[in-house]
Amino acid sequence: MNTSKRDVVVSSRIRLARNYEDLPFSPGETARSAESCSQRTLEALSAENAQADYILYRMNEMDDVERYYLAEKHLISFDLIRKSETGSAYIRKDEQVSIMMNEEDHLRIQAIAAGEDLSNSALMIYRIEDALQKHVRFAFDTKLGYLTACPTNAGTGMRASLMLHLPMLTADKQMGIVNQTVAKLGLIIRGIYGEGSEALGHLYQISNQATLGRTEEEIIRAVLTVGDKLIDMERALRLKAHTMEPVKTEDQIFRSYGLLKYSRSMPQKEFLSHWSNLRLGISLGRLPVTMDSADILLEDAQDAHVMKWAGSPVTGDRLDERRCARIRRHLSRRNNGR
Amino acid sequence: MNTSKRDVVVSSRIRLARNYEDLPFSPGETARSAESCSQRTLEALSAENAQADYILYRMNEMDDVERYYLAEKHLISFDLIRKSETGSAYIRKDEQVSIMMNEEDHLRIQAIAAGEDLSNSALMIYRIEDALQKHVRFAFDTKLGYLTACPTNAGTGMRASLMLHLPMLTADKQMGIVNQTVAKLGLIIRGIYGEGSEALGHLYQISNQATLGRTEEEIIRAVLTVGDKLIDMERALRLKAHTMEPVKTEDQIFRSYGLLKYSRSMPQKEFLSHWSNLRLGISLGRLPVTMDSADILLEDAQDAHVMKWAGSPVTGDRLDERRCARIRRHLSRRNNGR
Repeated sequence: MNTSKRDVVVSSRIRLARNYEDLPFSPGETARSAESCSQRTLEALSAENAQADYILYRMNEMDDVERYYLAEKHLISFDLIRKSETGSAYIRKDEQVSIMMNEEDHLRIQAIAAGEDLSNSALMIYRIEDALQKHVRFAFDTKLGYLTACPTNAGTGMRASLMLHLPMLTADKQMGIVNQTVAKLGLIIRGIYGEGSEALGHLYQISNQATLGRTEEEIIRAVLTVGDKLIDMERALRLKAHTMEPVKTEDQIFRSYGLLKYSRSMPQKEFLSHWSNLRLGISLGRLPVTMDSADILLEDAQDAHVMKWAGSPVTGDRLDERRCARIRRHLSRRNNGR
Repeated sequence: MNTSKRDVVVSSRIRLARNYEDLPFSPGETARSAESCSQRTLEALSAENAQADYILYRMNEMDDVERYYLAEKHLISFDLIRKSETGSAYIRKDEQVSIMMNEEDHLRIQAIAAGEDLSNSALMIYRIEDALQKHVRFAFDTKLGYLTACPTNAGTGMRASLMLHLPMLTADKQMGIVNQTVAKLGLIIRGIYGEGSEALGHLYQISNQATLGRTEEEIIRAVLTVGDKLIDMERALRLKAHTMEPVKTEDQIFRSYGLLKYSRSMPQKEFLSHWSNLRLGISLGRLPVTMDSADILLEDAQDAHVMKWAGSPVTGDRLDERRCARIRRHLSRRNNGR
């Protein structure tokens, strides 16, 4: 992991869209073809002696808390949750790899890592694809590359993305310009939480728009190049704020820290805004919390995580109350690690 | 001191208005008569061997920071500050007694104590008046009692007051009714900070309106009776809030505590609102801070106290920043006492 970019890059992700050549593509799939899809993946994993590394999650056997819990960890997508009858996922026990089945494509293989780690994620994911391909055949066209349910994913079938924390670019109202610039370079950037209005938590995902006509290496290089540019811009603004307006910046950071440590009830939306200041404060070396701890907290304090931890169904005020208990417990831990 | 009412009563105060019978009353006084007034008081204190217990503060020898510092401690009035040429005050070193000279009357003798302590304050102040009267003669009319510059203070010349902390009566929008009820009983209640709009810090002073036609004992009894009624009302609302909406109440308390502990810049007005929640939290036994400490903090975090502590002139943002440093230092003290 490249820890030197951890101040801005929360995580890296690569996903491949793959389809079995002889099964009907979504939306033409049937319950039976969907089951075949799951079965083949299991067999391929078994043949590789990798089955024990994975846990199978079937959407139709899970309740919403369990489903959204995995989605909050970015291990499954909201689209998979919508496919609650046929969707399933193999998730590697280290939670770095997940294989979604019967989402938009037969397979969505994804590797996720903390910080900027696209190259390693790519290595990891192609090793898994190679292993599967020893046992199965994916739909492939010599001209179009890998075929997908939606043509926009054909070609490499690969999407490389970085999750970036851009509080200062957001505060400086530069995200509109960033959007346009990124689009010109064939990439797209969007808020992770709450699209449309200001991105909650000031978290953005930058990824490639096109999967066709560029090699995997070119895609990764493009994402990294634009990512580095955004990192530079964000860092420059942070330095400027901390140098020119140190008290204002520290006040913003420490107020959020105080509220996270002491509040007794907090909606998720408010949590995300204070979390953003927490992460900013850590990046500036001002808070006694590790970056790992902050990034774990981001997941741990979200609705489904809080519900799962509570053990019994909690909603509304009770949920906001339990969220605070969880945040407090997290921030009071001695070493602030997991 | 009656510590049992400390949850609502911040302090008690009694002041007497007295005038030398042979010197012109304000506004007819001259620089020379004003000086005579000071001189006589000094001589009377000296004759009682009490001079060493007091420090003399002459308004015309002080800068604004020093003047407002004393006003924030309620040891002198803003009216005395306005009399910057001739006004002065003897302040006893224990800061429980002050004798203002050439304010509206020749002498304003005042005793102040923490908590509900009007009887003791009265004893203290009449002991001082007796001592002075051995050496000087105050203007007195057998029918009107003590004569004062403004006729509304004639008679006993006494004002007895309690400073009350009424956050829940304020939040419950009951202060309008309280105002009317208190007025019917011949008393008045007003916000300590920021009259007109909502009282900052939710601090109110209740005192007698009339000084004529009632004995000193009757005045004190009336203030205590109405005070006790308000204490009961405030306590009932606190109990209700803490019982019916414990999380909301604790959230309000702990958010303010977190912000007081961690903010890096805070205007005085905002400080007063969080201070109110701090004191409420202490009264409910929810915060690791003593009531003494909270009441000292109320003075210590105000503008002139912060300026005096800073040692150099600070205003605006710098003032709000130093205020936070002072608050933090206060709340991090091990035993939270002076």
